[in-house]
Parts: sequence; structure tokens; C-alpha cells
Amino acid sequence: MEVLRALLVEDNPDHAELMRVYLEKENIASDVVGSGGECLERAGDGYDVILLDYYLPDIDGLEVLRRLKGKGVDLPVVVITGHGDEQVAVEAMKGGAYDYVVKSGMYFLVVPEVARKAVEAHRTSKRLEEELIQAQRREAIVQTAIAVNHEINNPLGVILGNAELLLSQLKDADEGVVRKLRIIEEQCIKIKEITQKLANLTDPVLTEYLKGREKMLDIHRSK
Amino acid sequence: MEVLRALLVEDNPDHAELMRVYLEKENIASDVVGSGGECLERAGDGYDVILLDYYLPDIDGLEVLRRLKGKGVDLPVVVITGHGDEQVAVEAMKGGAYDYVVKSGMYFLVVPEVARKAVEAHRTSKRLEEELIQAQRREAIVQTAIAVNHEINNPLGVILGNAELLLSQLKDADEGVVRKLRIIEEQCIKIKEITQKLANLTDPVLTEYLKGREKMLDIHRSK
Repeated sequence: MEVLRALLVEDNPDHAELMRVYLEKENIASDVVGSGGECLERAGDGYDVILLDYYLPDIDGLEVLRRLKGKGVDLPVVVITGHGDEQVAVEAMKGGAYDYVVKSGMYFLVVPEVARKAVEAHRTSKRLEEELIQAQRREAIVQTAIAVNHEINNPLGVILGNAELLLSQLKDADEGVVRKLRIIEEQCIKIKEITQKLANLTDPVLTEYLKGREKMLDIHRSK
Repeated sequence: MEVLRALLVEDNPDHAELMRVYLEKENIASDVVGSGGECLERAGDGYDVILLDYYLPDIDGLEVLRRLKGKGVDLPVVVITGHGDEQVAVEAMKGGAYDYVVKSGMYFLVVPEVARKAVEAHRTSKRLEEELIQAQRREAIVQTAIAVNHEINNPLGVILGNAELLLSQLKDADEGVVRKLRIIEEQCIKIKEITQKLANLTDPVLTEYLKGREKMLDIHRSK
């Protein structure tokens, strides 16, 4: 079972310790902080999931959720509260929480499983989002490739045709003239190969264009 | 206030009528159906929001949510239930509901506002998703444009350079030779204009390529 790292936000040391122990049993290592402020400070430290007590000494769970989003922290959050209040549950879910655990009875027994499910669901949704974006990117590249072919093939054909006519017309001209026409021919074929490669592209690969700033399509490494 | 259309899924005719009247007062026209099955059948009929009673005679609200997703229906759903059960609330929210109203007291007074908010939130989230995708598409097009420039400018420059050398070398040759070289020159400039246009593209426009099947970048209409 993959070891996960949880940030446990709980101001009651007894509850924190109970949860920490039960999480540990299920291969979830946790660091404990006691306030919303500390949660916001530490959220970026490589955790897989945040387990967030709703009622904290400084700010409530909903405000923590809002500020996490504001900071661009993209982690699943499980909200934990001592009050069985469905409005809090709904508000937390609307605020972006993945799930909700009520502190009653042996609640700490379910926390590890809920945490693990939250991590999985979050990863799945990230993956689907990434796939959607990649599909759209591929489509845009193909649409550009079609346009490039469409626009360039015609003038390129005219250049190549005229170069070939000149070659047959001037085949007895001096060597320099013939060489220049051959170069024109070769370069046309080079451009044609590139546009053909572009037209058949299904698996685009990117490469660095301006160091660390921009990327461009790597026509040669793309398939 | 924009007139909205709601599909109201409620098997109790008294509740349905109460909600229908209060929705109408707030410019929300609603059609009433009494089962999950009917909801699934009618969901695609141009509604802005679904107001879904959780406990239905055929399938429960959670199952309706699941099947709506399975059918690709992309509408905000507000779940309405007579039981103040937070676990149902959380499950409905996890199942993709936007909000949750408990049938108690004068609950029907809040339904119109909740419905309107759900529509707004859903539209905002669609718009943000669309913007993210468009940004990614634009980036992919620009990356392809950079690559095309990068690959084509060099051979194109060689063709143009040689054509110009030949023109000065053969300026006294017969008219046909000079005309062919001029055509080569013109077509090179045409390709250069296209690659330059591509390189400076910030607002890509698409056009139909294969009728109804594929689209391509419209280099001339893009800016």
C-alpha cells in the first residue's frame, strides 16, 4: 500500500494523537498543526491530503478552504467536525472539500479510508482533466498542421514545377546555374517533407524554444 | 431577471405544486415529473437546472445523479429531501449535486434562489473550463506556428536567395526564364507571409476543412 502524507489540522491534542496513530496503522504519515493559519503555511509542503477540523481557534474550515483555493493549493481536503450539521457539510463540499467525517463514536477508524479515497478521487479527476486538455491540444496542433499544408503546398508546388521546367530548359547552361536550380529543388523537397510530417502528426512532442520561456512543437521527434 | 427553465422531479403532487408556484413567482418555469426514470428521459429537453427530490418511487437521487452523468447531461442539480440526513447531503454533493435543500418549514421559499445560484455557478464553472481549454489550444497553435517558422524559414531563405542570384545572373536570358524565376520569387514571398502570419498569431480562428468532419486553422482570418 502506497505511503501517503497527510497534513492533520486539529487543535485538540487528544483527537490529533488518536487520528495520527490510526492513520499511521494504514500507512498514512501525518504532521499535526493546530490552526488554520498553520495549515495554510504548510499546505504546500508535499502532502497528499489535508484532514481539516472544521472548528479551529483562528479561522473556520470554510475560510481555510477558500484561502487554500486562493493560494492555488490543489489538494483533496477531508473536513472533520464534531457537530453533525448537514449545512456545514454541504457548505464544506461546495467550498471544495472532497468528503466529510463527523467526530462521533469511533470516527477515527474511518478517517484513513476516507483520506485514501479522497487522494484517489483527486488523482483521477486531475488525470481526466489533463487528458481532456491534451486531447484539445492535439486537436489544435492537427488543425494548424492542416492549415499549413493547405496554404503552403500550392505555392511550393508552383516553385518546384518552375524549378524543374528551368532545369530542363537550362540543362546545358553553366554549372553554377544548374547547381542553384538543384538547390532550389532540394529545399522545396525539404519543406514538403516537413509539411507532410506535420499533416500526419498524431503524437506531438514539445521541445524548448526560448530557454525556459517558450516551447515549440518538435516536428522531427513528433510522430 | 432572466427566465429559467427547471425540471422539477417530485412524486408528491402537493409539494410539486407548492414549488412550481414559488418558482414561477421568481421567473423560473418548471415542468413536473414524478420519477427518476422520467427525469432521465426529459433531462435533455433544454432545462437550465434540475430540482431533484431524493426519495423517488423508482430510483433514489444518488442513482439519478449517477445516470445523468452517464448520459452526459451537464446540468446543475439541486437535491431536495425530507430527511435532514447529512450523509445523504454529502453523498449527493459527492455525486455531483450543486446544492441541497431540506424539506422543512417554508423550504419552498428558498428553492428559487438556490436554483438560480446553481445555474450561475454552473455557468461560471463551464466558462472557466472553456477558457482554460481555449488558452491551452491557443498555446498549442502558437507552439506549432513557432515550429513551422523554425523549420521552413531556413530552406525558404535558401530558395529565395538562389532565385535572386539566378535572376541577376540570367537577367539577359529569354523572357520565359526570367518569368519563371519571378514566379519562384513571388511564391517564396507568399509562403513567407503565411509563416510570418502564423508566427504572430494571437487570436486563432477555425474554419471547416472537411465538411462537418474536421476543422483547420484559418490563417487568413486569424489575428
